Amino acid sequence: MGKINIGIIGAGRIGRLHAKSISYHIPGAKVLGITDIIKDGLSDFAEELGIEKVYENHEELLDDPLIDAVLICSSTDTHADIAVKAAQKGKHIFCEKPVDLTPEKVLQVGEAVEKNNVFFQVGFNRRFDHNFAHIKNLVQAGEIGDVHVIKITSRDPAPPPAEYSAVSGGMFLDMTIHDFDMARFLADSEIVEVFANATCLVDPAIGEAGDVDTAVISLKFANGAIGVIDNSRQAAYGYDQRVEVFGSKGAAVAENDKPTNVSLWNADNISSDKPLYFFLERYMQSFVDEMTQFMEAISKNTTSPVGIKDGLNSLLVALAAKESSKSGKPIVINYD
Amino acid sequence: MGKINIGIIGAGRIGRLHAKSISYHIPGAKVLGITDIIKDGLSDFAEELGIEKVYENHEELLDDPLIDAVLICSSTDTHADIAVKAAQKGKHIFCEKPVDLTPEKVLQVGEAVEKNNVFFQVGFNRRFDHNFAHIKNLVQAGEIGDVHVIKITSRDPAPPPAEYSAVSGGMFLDMTIHDFDMARFLADSEIVEVFANATCLVDPAIGEAGDVDTAVISLKFANGAIGVIDNSRQAAYGYDQRVEVFGSKGAAVAENDKPTNVSLWNADNISSDKPLYFFLERYMQSFVDEMTQFMEAISKNTTSPVGIKDGLNSLLVALAAKESSKSGKPIVINYD
Amino acid sequence: MGKINIGIIGAGRIGRLHAKSISYHIPGAKVLGITDIIKDGLSDFAEELGIEKVYENHEELLDDPLIDAVLICSSTDTHADIAVKAAQKGKHIFCEKPVDLTPEKVLQVGEAVEKNNVFFQVGFNRRFDHNFAHIKNLVQAGEIGDVHVIKITSRDPAPPPAEYSAVSGGMFLDMTIHDFDMARFLADSEIVEVFANATCLVDPAIGEAGDVDTAVISLKFANGAIGVIDNSRQAAYGYDQRVEVFGSKGAAVAENDKPTNVSLWNADNISSDKPLYFFLERYMQSFVDEMTQFMEAISKNTTSPVGIKDGLNSLLVALAAKESSKSGKPIVINYD
Amino acid sequence: MGKINIGIIGAGRIGRLHAKSISYHIPGAKVLGITDIIKDGLSDFAEELGIEKVYENHEELLDDPLIDAVLICSSTDTHADIAVKAAQKGKHIFCEKPVDLTPEKVLQVGEAVEKNNVFFQVGFNRRFDHNFAHIKNLVQAGEIGDVHVIKITSRDPAPPPAEYSAVSGGMFLDMTIHDFDMARFLADSEIVEVFANATCLVDPAIGEAGDVDTAVISLKFANGAIGVIDNSRQAAYGYDQRVEVFGSKGAAVAENDKPTNVSLWNADNISSDKPLYFFLERYMQSFVDEMTQFMEAISKNTTSPVGIKDGLNSLLVALAAKESSKSGKPIVINYD
Repeated sequence: MGKINIGIIGAGRIGRLHAKSISYHIPGAKVLGITDIIKDGLSDFAEELGIEKVYENHEELLDDPLIDAVLICSSTDTHADIAVKAAQKGKHIFCEKPVDLTPEKVLQVGEAVEKNNVFFQVGFNRRFDHNFAHIKNLVQAGEIGDVHVIKITSRDPAPPPAEYSAVSGGMFLDMTIHDFDMARFLADSEIVEVFANATCLVDPAIGEAGDVDTAVISLKFANGAIGVIDNSRQAAYGYDQRVEVFGSKGAAVAENDKPTNVSLWNADNISSDKPLYFFLERYMQSFVDEMTQFMEAISKNTTSPVGIKDGLNSLLVALAAKESSKSGKPIVINYD
Repeated sequence: MGKINIGIIGAGRIGRLHAKSISYHIPGAKVLGITDIIKDGLSDFAEELGIEKVYENHEELLDDPLIDAVLICSSTDTHADIAVKAAQKGKHIFCEKPVDLTPEKVLQVGEAVEKNNVFFQVGFNRRFDHNFAHIKNLVQAGEIGDVHVIKITSRDPAPPPAEYSAVSGGMFLDMTIHDFDMARFLADSEIVEVFANATCLVDPAIGEAGDVDTAVISLKFANGAIGVIDNSRQAAYGYDQRVEVFGSKGAAVAENDKPTNVSLWNADNISSDKPLYFFLERYMQSFVDEMTQFMEAISKNTTSPVGIKDGLNSLLVALAAKESSKSGKPIVINYD
Repeated sequence: MGKINIGIIGAGRIGRLHAKSISYHIPGAKVLGITDIIKDGLSDFAEELGIEKVYENHEELLDDPLIDAVLICSSTDTHADIAVKAAQKGKHIFCEKPVDLTPEKVLQVGEAVEKNNVFFQVGFNRRFDHNFAHIKNLVQAGEIGDVHVIKITSRDPAPPPAEYSAVSGGMFLDMTIHDFDMARFLADSEIVEVFANATCLVDPAIGEAGDVDTAVISLKFANGAIGVIDNSRQAAYGYDQRVEVFGSKGAAVAENDKPTNVSLWNADNISSDKPLYFFLERYMQSFVDEMTQFMEAISKNTTSPVGIKDGLNSLLVALAAKESSKSGKPIVINYD
Repeated sequence: MGKINIGIIGAGRIGRLHAKSISYHIPGAKVLGITDIIKDGLSDFAEELGIEKVYENHEELLDDPLIDAVLICSSTDTHADIAVKAAQKGKHIFCEKPVDLTPEKVLQVGEAVEKNNVFFQVGFNRRFDHNFAHIKNLVQAGEIGDVHVIKITSRDPAPPPAEYSAVSGGMFLDMTIHDFDMARFLADSEIVEVFANATCLVDPAIGEAGDVDTAVISLKFANGAIGVIDNSRQAAYGYDQRVEVFGSKGAAVAENDKPTNVSLWNADNISSDKPLYFFLERYMQSFVDEMTQFMEAISKNTTSPVGIKDGLNSLLVALAAKESSKSGKPIVINYD
């Protein structure tokens, strides 16, 4: 079998990152074409990477019979429609997260995927992170025993502009959704209740926009485990991404990654590097690995490592967290 | 001024520990006498430490005009009555935690203390722990900026017998009360709402006794900060006592203390010691330091570092957590 | 200016690694052609990377006027002759370490390079390692003050076959030469005396072949600092690459890199990953960065970051260490 | 059997420290009497600890038939004579290190000890340190396999006055002697050759006094292992006491002890405490434990954990290091 031909829809930061990952690190796939609503610089980028085709729009890309699979890296509000069309054209799909901000549209995507029998993977890249994947392996190998408590700390180095809150759906749908997926992934169980203790301490403008920037989110899982996620939109020391799974036989704890393992010992103290700055630095390896898995799953016709259900259920938890934050009450999540 | 003469009421594990701390490490104080309802071995212990008097009961001890201050180390249900009597006799008081399981009796103690103008300190020893006291100093020095999130992990190496649950008032009043006080101490603010997500995962017998053994407790503070405590009655790797204060300028993070700083590097992995086993090993230094502070405060006539309000308010939070755990709802705490 | 056209001589493990680094990570350069004495699989490799030309031999490659610079990745005994020819053809040169096992031939290369005014860089890749480069920066920024003591621990996960000892010149010329260069680099001063306390403890066959596998090597630098390197051909826990620079204002300490930052806490102990397995895993980033520097230096016509003098002087120290190990005496190194 | 009655000769810092250790932590022993050439404050100290007798001089103390054992904590030049007399009086002996600066006098002590059949222990307290004792246990349990390399880093926070160099015998006899004993202890083998690469980089006055302040000392052991000690009289970050034993099955590595396990994460870096300041802070637990062992060995009539041979052989290595440093040559040590 030849290389898998990939079409990339959306050539922003994340689209270009995937294009490079595939070109440099995945021998079994080839970025055949690319498209974006912004044409500026697109041809140069394509040329640099040896991408043969620059399509006028995603329709043209989806019409190309040579394309086997697409990466949907456009803005969130376009994900679902493009995904449905791609499925109808028989293309396998990698869709950046969130699939959509409404469960209804995610379900439509799910139906189109199922009906057209294409492969679908959501861009919850953190599942492929070396630290978190290792913890998942330890959990699955029974090293932690029965899982009792899952703890996730997730803090950004700097908040997005306050006006971004409306577009993104707010902190829970934009940022915490990664953590909800991680919690579900590590617990291997759905979140059945969420209580979000959230507030605005970083930037008043975020609060004025109706959003929060600091939260402690309490979780109950279907399997009886409990958990907590704590978020901040601004950690002075940078991107903080830690996970802990505690169970009957012990705990697995992931600390932050840092640029170096050097420490400086002087008359003041012993000091070392801050964590890697933000998601591009911190999760680069996971972006490559999710692509590798995507290609392998397509080649071998296996189940998706991060399917439509993961996109949908993480969204449902995020929406429940938003509701809990507003009502001040715990919210039970209905999956029926 | 001469040495402060101390009388110890209750010569169990903690009473003896304090007797030794004072005898060995506090030149300005002297354990003059001791009493316990169990007479067996008491004289031998007194002789070993050079304690002159063994009283028949706490009334006799309180009647001795030579006694300046008492340590109340008897069973919890006797604390309040003894404290009231001690106050009436004009003795300064160090009282082990919890002062009582009911706010009413704690208030009675408070009134007696105030009326008789004696000094009163509760045995929340962890405030004096090297790690946590250092974090408090960093917070007070403004190194963390405004406090946004307080996180406490507190896990025991092994659960108490299930029948202990009834006597102790359950996990929140017996174990988490230390963490509630720590949260108040580090936030320098009262807890105004608590949501306890608690369950029984360690030992079904604990659940049958109406108690919980695993919890994630979400907190709101009067100053706007939020927080979380996670508890387990059984960590396979031993006593887990970590604290993190996150604020606008950064975070202060306390890791566990270990017996040695040695690691073993071999073909399997890099391994190091588990944490110090339990509270006697882990908090020994804090027990000495709380005594030192008690004596200094009496000598210098300063305010109590851990007063009746700390005993009362931590209890109110613990009771609210218990209620939240039962009702499944967040509970607002009323301090009026 | 267009891309720098690179010719690679020797397509073994390291030659192929450089080919990929350049193709994937260095936009300003292009691998135009490649050659190797082993033809098997060479065309396939070239095709995979889009390398246009596969030369019959290095002479043909050097004759190609389109080639701007060459990477000499063939066996050590061929380095010097090829480098001299490349210089004569006006090609810039990146030469894998060691340049040669004899100072005479290294000097010949140096003369050819100077006479023909080409750029020359030796493959002491560790200078570009994130940890060690950071320490160098700290030293240069004066953070350590005056350098007093340099310590390097360098242990391999497994020894090479005993018969390799003869070919490679033995442990000091094959393995420790990296550490000698690192010591010179960090001290920013030449090594003027060496005392090698070396023995054979890992594998008797290595000793029978006249080589050593375990060593503590004491150093004196021209600037008055002192140092020590300790080597082993076999660390049970894998590749151990640590560095410490101690000076009047403090110390900078580099610990090993590991695959993850996860630790497992259980009833036995707290355990974490062993170091990254060997040089390909551990130093991958440095191989890319030395190539980037090579290209930049050529483009900008700057001095070599690792010049012929570094290749020569590190070799002289290695030879002195070998002599010291045999004679049991400290050896003064003559640089005239 | 009753308590062991102890007489302390020399009530300086270390004598008083031992007096407190015994009084507070060792129920089986009692400090019966004390003496010092400086009378000032001696009675007050004795009274504070409940020490019954204050002797005029060490002769009077040694004549007291109630004294079972003595601690020799006077100045180094008096150790040997007092030890000989104590042995002749049948007293068991704990002698601070070094026993003497000349092997001859140490041998005299050894003869007197043997002839009078008394117990003798040298104050190499570091053998009882939690970290180093744990490493020794790992070595003895075979966890490291055959020992290949022993590494000791030992740096003081500040140099002694330059004039102290003459009195103390210089850095190797005063400071490194502890490290030589530690190396012998961990290797369980004698040092047969030493090469001291030493210099004066901290304070020129030390050099003018004929001493060194910075050293890398290469070691060969009788069992074939090799090793290295690095010393500095001044580490800007405080007392640096690390040990590493590397063998066929792995390595055991002891890091420094610190006042807290707290780290501060802020916009600058991640920082933590410097090591505990100096030997009193760092080795307090070992001082108590060596006393406990001393008493136990006397009670149970067992072999000394740190006998006259340890005092003698560590001194011989120190003298050889001094000679090597002066001659610039490795020195073979003759133990016959």
